[in-house]
Amino acid sequence: MVKAIRIVGEKILLLDQRLLPTQIQYVECSNWHDVAQAIKKMVVRGAPAIGAAAAFGMALAATALKKSTQKQFLAGLAEAAEGLKSTRPTAVNLMWAVERMLNVARTQQGKTTEEWENILWAEAEKIASEDIAVNKKLSALGAELIPQQARILTHCNAGALATVGYGTALGIIRRAVEQNKEISVFAGETRPYLQGARLTTWEMMQDNIPVTLIADNMAGFLMQQRQVDLVIVGADRIAANGDVANKIGTYSLAVLAKAHQIPFYVAAPISTFDFTLQDGGQIPIEERDEAELTHFAGTRIAPDGVCCYNPAFDITPAALITAIITEIGVVRQPTRESLMHLQEGLQYGV
Amino acid sequence: MVKAIRIVGEKILLLDQRLLPTQIQYVECSNWHDVAQAIKKMVVRGAPAIGAAAAFGMALAATALKKSTQKQFLAGLAEAAEGLKSTRPTAVNLMWAVERMLNVARTQQGKTTEEWENILWAEAEKIASEDIAVNKKLSALGAELIPQQARILTHCNAGALATVGYGTALGIIRRAVEQNKEISVFAGETRPYLQGARLTTWEMMQDNIPVTLIADNMAGFLMQQRQVDLVIVGADRIAANGDVANKIGTYSLAVLAKAHQIPFYVAAPISTFDFTLQDGGQIPIEERDEAELTHFAGTRIAPDGVCCYNPAFDITPAALITAIITEIGVVRQPTRESLMHLQEGLQYGV
Repeated sequence: MVKAIRIVGEKILLLDQRLLPTQIQYVECSNWHDVAQAIKKMVVRGAPAIGAAAAFGMALAATALKKSTQKQFLAGLAEAAEGLKSTRPTAVNLMWAVERMLNVARTQQGKTTEEWENILWAEAEKIASEDIAVNKKLSALGAELIPQQARILTHCNAGALATVGYGTALGIIRRAVEQNKEISVFAGETRPYLQGARLTTWEMMQDNIPVTLIADNMAGFLMQQRQVDLVIVGADRIAANGDVANKIGTYSLAVLAKAHQIPFYVAAPISTFDFTLQDGGQIPIEERDEAELTHFAGTRIAPDGVCCYNPAFDITPAALITAIITEIGVVRQPTRESLMHLQEGLQYGV
Repeated sequence: MVKAIRIVGEKILLLDQRLLPTQIQYVECSNWHDVAQAIKKMVVRGAPAIGAAAAFGMALAATALKKSTQKQFLAGLAEAAEGLKSTRPTAVNLMWAVERMLNVARTQQGKTTEEWENILWAEAEKIASEDIAVNKKLSALGAELIPQQARILTHCNAGALATVGYGTALGIIRRAVEQNKEISVFAGETRPYLQGARLTTWEMMQDNIPVTLIADNMAGFLMQQRQVDLVIVGADRIAANGDVANKIGTYSLAVLAKAHQIPFYVAAPISTFDFTLQDGGQIPIEERDEAELTHFAGTRIAPDGVCCYNPAFDITPAALITAIITEIGVVRQPTRESLMHLQEGLQYGV
């Protein structure tokens, strides 16, 4: 499997997901600025993958700072943290990973800067390896919800490419296939950035999982024809009440699933939760460049000067979600109360 | 205004809508085969425009046959009719226009073939000019439903380019603007063929009507944010019970509009009705080439060999439609009964 993030010596190689599926090419990052640029320009995307990439960006910052004083080191690290966090506003795993890296340095005050450097690299490696373990855990829990035969609709790419490995929504699909369930996948192409067409179909085909590409606006028709048994998507941030920010179009799918009485599942690690936000209305929604709508591969597809609206994410209210699948448990019909139990369970190591 | 169909001598010029908005270029049709190819390849599209183009295709056939015997003429005309009708299966205006042309010849048995040729050209011209008149009538009726201020979402292109002139859904918007209402339009880009991005935005910008381009999967989010006051779309075929076949994605919008209590209007001339079909389940749905999903302007956007599903239309049940707007009246909450009244009204010239 091609990996989204590779470490070679003191360099981070990020798979350039803008070029998939036609080219497999890595972007080399030698410092945190390179990583920030790669996140901003969507070389790397997917909430967990962005989080891990940013952690390695912090490690690169530590390497650049290892000969400086402790004060300079912490100031430099804080600057890198701000720079990395400002790249994309919606996915919270980015903030979570960067904060975790900062805290590791802050809580090890007795160490030298060279020791800090080692500690930060080790922490980034830990974040990356934990991500794979977490995805496998939540995938095992999620696969229990998948019937023996299932036609599954997914949106965007919540796969190995969106994480350090295995995937969340696609991890559950992988696990169900490993259990010899008869699974077929509909991949919504996911305009404007086509993560479904370019990435999800590619990942499924690499694993020989049957996949059919559709335009996003075909989902309702498929549901009406009873060709979809369930929907699984990933998440970029989940508020304390269970409202989910995910790729634009997720909300439409959730409304359609509800109207057709089709289960709608969200798969996400606990690092995707933001318990500081009361509800989804408080999640910042990134708006991206109009060119994503007006141009395709350099070809203009809309009139010169046309006004565009290009929100990259939307908010799906908890009431439309059948269950949120995490590595520490499945929360059916998520509410503020049931998620609080999840959070408490996490704190007490349950 | 650039016209979708122009007649120059005994040639039909069809605006090549595949090249809009970047190029304005006409395809010259000298015989009915050229017209059939142009319909099949979507040089001309939009149910009423396809109907008018096919009528002129029949006129071209008549010209080619004018020196033949009456028997040969009628046989040749029937062949052209079959050829034209087989180009696209869903829109019924095509069948309607071709049948009307055939009937004109059949009911004028006393005439010479040269007279038939003239009669057929006159009938095609009549179909074309009637289309504009019909669109203006239904637009006037539809505009009465539009409030003084309205943010209108539309899908695909039901405008001047989809008709002989003025448009149906976009005709209503034009009329409301002429009445000095404060109108702004959201145009869904309409994957895979991008009629919204390429054609609707262009038409609205030509008329200085404020328009914002969105990806189809942003419609739900806009509705959730209360940024859409109503939806208007065209139709390709309407069954006797009011079920509507229209561009893929229409059904999803209708479900979303219902969930957000937003009025959902369908604008279509009576020639779009197919009273021989009991319900939408009987309307044939065209499936188009996978390349519409896998390639863009020659660039591959999905993996080689990926399986695709590309239905060009979907069926919106009558129950989701606030009103169907025709040139002879507005049918609110359409049912088999209310549409039967419409049909009877039409027969008795009411």
